[in-house]
Amino acid sequence: MSLSKNNLKLITSLQRKKYREKHNLFVAEGIKVVNELLNSSIEAFHVFSTNEDFSVSKEVDFTVVSDNELKKISTLKNPNKVLGLFKIPERKKLKVSGFIVALDEVNDPGNLGTIIRLCDWFGVTQLVCSKNTVDCYNQKVVQSTMGSLTRVNISYVDLPEFLKTTDLPVYTADMNGTNVYTSSLPQKAVLVMGNEANGISKEISGIVKHKLTIPRFGDIQQTESLNVATATAILLSEFKRGLK
Amino acid sequence: MSLSKNNLKLITSLQRKKYREKHNLFVAEGIKVVNELLNSSIEAFHVFSTNEDFSVSKEVDFTVVSDNELKKISTLKNPNKVLGLFKIPERKKLKVSGFIVALDEVNDPGNLGTIIRLCDWFGVTQLVCSKNTVDCYNQKVVQSTMGSLTRVNISYVDLPEFLKTTDLPVYTADMNGTNVYTSSLPQKAVLVMGNEANGISKEISGIVKHKLTIPRFGDIQQTESLNVATATAILLSEFKRGLK
Repeated sequence: MSLSKNNLKLITSLQRKKYREKHNLFVAEGIKVVNELLNSSIEAFHVFSTNEDFSVSKEVDFTVVSDNELKKISTLKNPNKVLGLFKIPERKKLKVSGFIVALDEVNDPGNLGTIIRLCDWFGVTQLVCSKNTVDCYNQKVVQSTMGSLTRVNISYVDLPEFLKTTDLPVYTADMNGTNVYTSSLPQKAVLVMGNEANGISKEISGIVKHKLTIPRFGDIQQTESLNVATATAILLSEFKRGLK
Repeated sequence: MSLSKNNLKLITSLQRKKYREKHNLFVAEGIKVVNELLNSSIEAFHVFSTNEDFSVSKEVDFTVVSDNELKKISTLKNPNKVLGLFKIPERKKLKVSGFIVALDEVNDPGNLGTIIRLCDWFGVTQLVCSKNTVDCYNQKVVQSTMGSLTRVNISYVDLPEFLKTTDLPVYTADMNGTNVYTSSLPQKAVLVMGNEANGISKEISGIVKHKLTIPRFGDIQQTESLNVATATAILLSEFKRGLK
């Protein structure tokens, strides 16, 4: 009932996408996130906890570990009692209807996690990512989604191809677009958000018809840009606010 | 013209608030952030760069360092050519007018940095922080503000006392408030945002009159809350959108 060398090796290897794909497993940590996943349709594989009373169904492997062992397998500064291995679910078919958020090379795991959480909040059930967007089973993404990962369908696709063939109108954020506050926005659309440093790629910029600007306020107009997650928050809010 | 032991020790010590206050200095890294600060009213103290041609005025101490030396003093995964020490400016007097954002025990440096950047974008020149909010000269805050730090006046105060005595109407985000999308919002107000895990304190909740809710969308109503920075983005956008 303690941590085996093989499990230590397995868990550490899952920090890399290559091994997540090989073993078809990802890691989640902390009581809150692990419980959200245990109560979802995602299949649990093995749970490690410093608390022997941590509640897991009988079909799931469960190992009690010491605080020191948890520290060894955790990537958190302050490990929180439990770490779980979960099976990466089969990718659901991309559902092209309603409102879709698309990401073009978003690199920061925290940003992707925040955007998944925003999609969940705003009822966006389909997120489409370019193949060079960070992996949604990256441990930092899993932690920052706070469970929303189980409620948003995430597809990695050839993004230019997807945008060229969709019937939905395609929008993006752009410094030289139309004022989002005075634009009439459709309920069904694709909203493409771009890379943290470079925005959307030239190829995608050529495909997107509708460019929206979040106006800057204040006298000194030097703020270069909003963070991609906060810009997504503001734009999703604008697309959805008329519905409530 | 290389890194002295004393400078190494000084720079490393500045990761802690205690030593930032003792030396009255803070650290910024990377070409973009350092240049923003060099071009601001903030006084530069010493710049270290791997590039001897990095442009600094004659009054500022300048030291060329090797890549390895930069790695030693940097807290970034990928140090970007330059690290600067800057003097912490004298706190400007708190200016209670117009629109103010107030923070109650925001702990995460990335969140504070993002909120400072949002204030700058939305023309909010005064940010008021409770004394237990993370220090705005924390290195991670400085990095994530991307220069906005120089354009927003940040005051650390007894927050309940401040909110009790201000003449401005005080707003906050709350799950049981009025729908922000259909509320009539004033141009002059204080918007208080709370701690990442616990929201605003009970004491402050008792003081705040106006509670706003960002409605949740979608069928499955399980997303627990929005991240404090994305909620601030949406609420600031709502307060300001009527002006453009």
